[in-house]
Amino acid sequence: VAWAGSRHAVEVADRMARLVASDPVFRKDTRTMLSRKELFKDTLKKAAHAWKRIVELRLTEEEANLLRLYVDQPGYVDLHWGMFVPAIKGQGTEEQQKKWLPMAYKFQIIGCYAQTELGHGSNVQGLETTATFDPSTDEFVMHSPTLTSSKWWPGGLGKASTHAVVYARLITEGKDYGIHGFIVQLRSLDDHSPLPGVTLGDIGGKFGSGAYNSMDNGVLRFDHVRIPRDQMLMRLSQVTREGKYVHSDVPKQLLYGTMVYVRQTIVADASKALSRAVCIAVRYSAIRKQFGSQDGGPETQVLNYKTQQSRLFPLLASAYAYRFVGQWLKWLYTDVNQKLEAKDYSTLPEAHACTAGLKSVTTSATADAIEECRKLCGGHGYLNSSGLPELFAVYVPACTYEGDNVVLLLQVARFLMKTVSQVAAGKQPVGTIAYMGNIQHLMQCKSAVNTAEDWLNPAAIKEVFEARALRMAVNCAQNISKAPSQEEGFSELSPDLLEAAVAHVQLIIVTKFIEKLQEDIPGPGVKEQLQKLCSIYALHLLHKHLGDFLSTGCVTARQGALANELLGKLYAQVRPNAVALVDAFDYTDHYLGSVLGRYDGDVYPALY
Amino acid sequence: VAWAGSRHAVEVADRMARLVASDPVFRKDTRTMLSRKELFKDTLKKAAHAWKRIVELRLTEEEANLLRLYVDQPGYVDLHWGMFVPAIKGQGTEEQQKKWLPMAYKFQIIGCYAQTELGHGSNVQGLETTATFDPSTDEFVMHSPTLTSSKWWPGGLGKASTHAVVYARLITEGKDYGIHGFIVQLRSLDDHSPLPGVTLGDIGGKFGSGAYNSMDNGVLRFDHVRIPRDQMLMRLSQVTREGKYVHSDVPKQLLYGTMVYVRQTIVADASKALSRAVCIAVRYSAIRKQFGSQDGGPETQVLNYKTQQSRLFPLLASAYAYRFVGQWLKWLYTDVNQKLEAKDYSTLPEAHACTAGLKSVTTSATADAIEECRKLCGGHGYLNSSGLPELFAVYVPACTYEGDNVVLLLQVARFLMKTVSQVAAGKQPVGTIAYMGNIQHLMQCKSAVNTAEDWLNPAAIKEVFEARALRMAVNCAQNISKAPSQEEGFSELSPDLLEAAVAHVQLIIVTKFIEKLQEDIPGPGVKEQLQKLCSIYALHLLHKHLGDFLSTGCVTARQGALANELLGKLYAQVRPNAVALVDAFDYTDHYLGSVLGRYDGDVYPALY
Repeated sequence: VAWAGSRHAVEVADRMARLVASDPVFRKDTRTMLSRKELFKDTLKKAAHAWKRIVELRLTEEEANLLRLYVDQPGYVDLHWGMFVPAIKGQGTEEQQKKWLPMAYKFQIIGCYAQTELGHGSNVQGLETTATFDPSTDEFVMHSPTLTSSKWWPGGLGKASTHAVVYARLITEGKDYGIHGFIVQLRSLDDHSPLPGVTLGDIGGKFGSGAYNSMDNGVLRFDHVRIPRDQMLMRLSQVTREGKYVHSDVPKQLLYGTMVYVRQTIVADASKALSRAVCIAVRYSAIRKQFGSQDGGPETQVLNYKTQQSRLFPLLASAYAYRFVGQWLKWLYTDVNQKLEAKDYSTLPEAHACTAGLKSVTTSATADAIEECRKLCGGHGYLNSSGLPELFAVYVPACTYEGDNVVLLLQVARFLMKTVSQVAAGKQPVGTIAYMGNIQHLMQCKSAVNTAEDWLNPAAIKEVFEARALRMAVNCAQNISKAPSQEEGFSELSPDLLEAAVAHVQLIIVTKFIEKLQEDIPGPGVKEQLQKLCSIYALHLLHKHLGDFLSTGCVTARQGALANELLGKLYAQVRPNAVALVDAFDYTDHYLGSVLGRYDGDVYPALY
Repeated sequence: VAWAGSRHAVEVADRMARLVASDPVFRKDTRTMLSRKELFKDTLKKAAHAWKRIVELRLTEEEANLLRLYVDQPGYVDLHWGMFVPAIKGQGTEEQQKKWLPMAYKFQIIGCYAQTELGHGSNVQGLETTATFDPSTDEFVMHSPTLTSSKWWPGGLGKASTHAVVYARLITEGKDYGIHGFIVQLRSLDDHSPLPGVTLGDIGGKFGSGAYNSMDNGVLRFDHVRIPRDQMLMRLSQVTREGKYVHSDVPKQLLYGTMVYVRQTIVADASKALSRAVCIAVRYSAIRKQFGSQDGGPETQVLNYKTQQSRLFPLLASAYAYRFVGQWLKWLYTDVNQKLEAKDYSTLPEAHACTAGLKSVTTSATADAIEECRKLCGGHGYLNSSGLPELFAVYVPACTYEGDNVVLLLQVARFLMKTVSQVAAGKQPVGTIAYMGNIQHLMQCKSAVNTAEDWLNPAAIKEVFEARALRMAVNCAQNISKAPSQEEGFSELSPDLLEAAVAHVQLIIVTKFIEKLQEDIPGPGVKEQLQKLCSIYALHLLHKHLGDFLSTGCVTARQGALANELLGKLYAQVRPNAVALVDAFDYTDHYLGSVLGRYDGDVYPALY
């Protein structure tokens, strides 16, 4: 229940997972053996069948989303529901929503989200596709002026979509007004052939077998394609019949709500992907045996080895940590929306930095962790039947999409530098950055930890994580101020700024884990187990980044050694409950998709 | 020339690479799109064609090996030449070599190496397959008594091999004499069907598309299969006609020579794989542009970003570091063989620990680095056409085969603990462990570095890497001595021991890089560039493991900050030569197999 969030969530997730697992159409155990073409057909079949079941069983939106989650195969529907519909909802006028959404809801049109170009990813302002208004016909002319302006990557674009929200430079009255969204029909609703002037294609194979190869990531070029003026998404700004560019009275900050929402789902996905990998690795480590005791007795379960524990249990702890910070982000999303409605934009920069940082840190760590889990399964982890190669290949794009992780961390760093200077000017920061207000204490405090067990105290943990994050930020700010200009300093110090940003984000995750454990946690002994995981999460970070803690002077070498000593004890205490802690994820064998992670532990006959 | 080792090496590598690149049979640009069956057929075709060219052109062994390298597709021939033939050479009697090797050389038989079992990888002593001598017929009976005793993983076993060297427990006169090798025929030489009592199969799809799916990793079970007694590999021990088990007078240490040889090739492969990934990432980073200057000018080359440099240049430096330590290992192999012939076994433990450690550290770091290079190419790195997904998938098994990397590091750690106690007893260690003899100085020295440029001095680097490695080992030894027993202490402290082992191995790599630069390096300015890379290699490790250096007290926080400052300056100095430093690898576009890494830089038309 602590994992799922509520009894209701447990029940509905369980019901949808079993519905998918028991339906032969949703089988996926041969997926990695299919050719690209067979795989794409299989995706179409599953999407159609899922839609049929959703309609037949009159599933709620929550149930439908879960069903699609457990089908566990990337496909055009993800973009239709996850990007196309929300873009129209968020950026379309009421009129536009009334016109387009019913068609989308009934799948009369299939939509995708065409932003990224061959030569332009992170730098959205650099997109080259143009939408030039022609007042003589009341139309926009969509055009791809260069090779690098070709739309490249959008999922669902290659084969499935009939429509797209296309981002392009709006040009009217000879002036470039920057990037705006347009609803563009791409294919005929009669025979699905590309419309005149539209060139479409699939961009080819991607990492792994199975994985994202079920998705038709595509390429799109326009040769002077004309669309009616009212297909520009006009909630925030319009072009009039005469060609005048005007802003509406809707504040553009409203878009932030969507961004917080999308990033919250990405953090939730990180905990899902990580927990699947950890579940497989923990279960198989409890089955697999290697090396005997000295006296030639039976071999030892791999999970009993300290080296296995010290690599695996921090990942188990991370899965829970990301889960809880994801739950908190759900709350933040509600909070941000309420404030937006009240036209209070004061917390937006903080919410933006916080979600950007969490997206970056959790997805990077999860990608690495899935691969580490694969290695922790020994040679058999390399077989597709272990499920781990596909899980890795399908997960890693999360480090790049919706904001490259390094670019996002630099945004966090920029926010930190701004906050440092505001604090110096006497302003009191709020939210996840509030600790910086405590600058007098945090700049000179020294940890009072004296025994290994002192590190069990959440306050002791919080203090050193706060001091480390703040001191790293302040160090960067001081070094930047020595540079000829702010921009030059920021650029020169950007590798250090990345580290400061990571320190800040790790603090947020640790803090939210600690706060979660101040709530009631149902189930006997559950809270105690989670407290151990929380300590493991924080202390393994302290050990891994010991250089930060020592060089900023908030921890001594001896205190660092005590933390390490406690970690060893905590691993031993978690060991007896490790399998129960992954069973708590309540994943079906279908969803796990791994012979090594089978619930019944009957691994070797299944492999053979 | 510094990279290749000699002018001759440059010439022959270049000639073979071009021979392969210009031959349409060896095309590989559509490899990731083939179904498993097509891919396997493609492998057979390439192997046959390579053999034909080798015979036609009367290539030397060196040339033939390079040709197979540049074909760049795992297949059964790798095991035939790399494991089956060497096993017979190393463990067969002269008589056995005379009988089997000519057939193997002419490909009249195809061999593989069947050691790993479904339930037994690292723990070779735990293998369950039995070879029971039957004196009534003068035969061994090969048998798979359990499911977990099935041979599982051997390459070439699934489809191609006619013979295998099989490792099994030798049982004679009712006694189990442990694991020995046997030459066993598996398939008919007439119609390639499995012989009676032999069950064979392919173990299924593996990580990635293309990659190791070209290899027929297989499963093998015996049901009381009889082979003549003289097919036991009898160089080291024999079973007589009567069933007596006897040792020969050949010392078993001779086998160490083979082990050093195999690990040396793995380290050389690490530098090859890493340099390919780095070459792709550096070239594409010089082409790819993102974000403009503040004043709306053209976008900046990604390679100019400090964040990109701080992630990429340490990997470039690592490629050179592994290359040079690999060249040194070649020398070590000759040295070990000379000593073995002179029956001097004194340096074997050191050579074993050193090669085990280098195998572990270089392969783990290379696997991570390939994935990092992929991320450094942004979204396009996720496309198979970037070459990086397949390079990663085909490389990662190196972390597991020929000794799991964690198991190997624990062997290094055991050797370090032994050396610490020998040093305490006054013994003078030699070779890569000689520095431990300097214990008085290294336990209490403090780095004298006072300015960032002081870190350019190789002696300053070497001192702190030696002090860190020694102090970590001594700390572990002291903590082990507090445990109830040596074994318990070793097991409890194994996570710390892994870190101490890594510190020791990193010192070896740094030292060999420094020593290489004391030699003559041909080419104007080449040595200066390599010196910068050597500093980057060492200082990025110092920064990454700063916690080690600070907590052992050999470096102060200020000195750590100076090292970091110097790193930033070195990146700026390497930047103008970065592309030249990867062009020096002299890889053909065929071998790189990446549209992003094309020599001509014409990336976007190629992608499109």
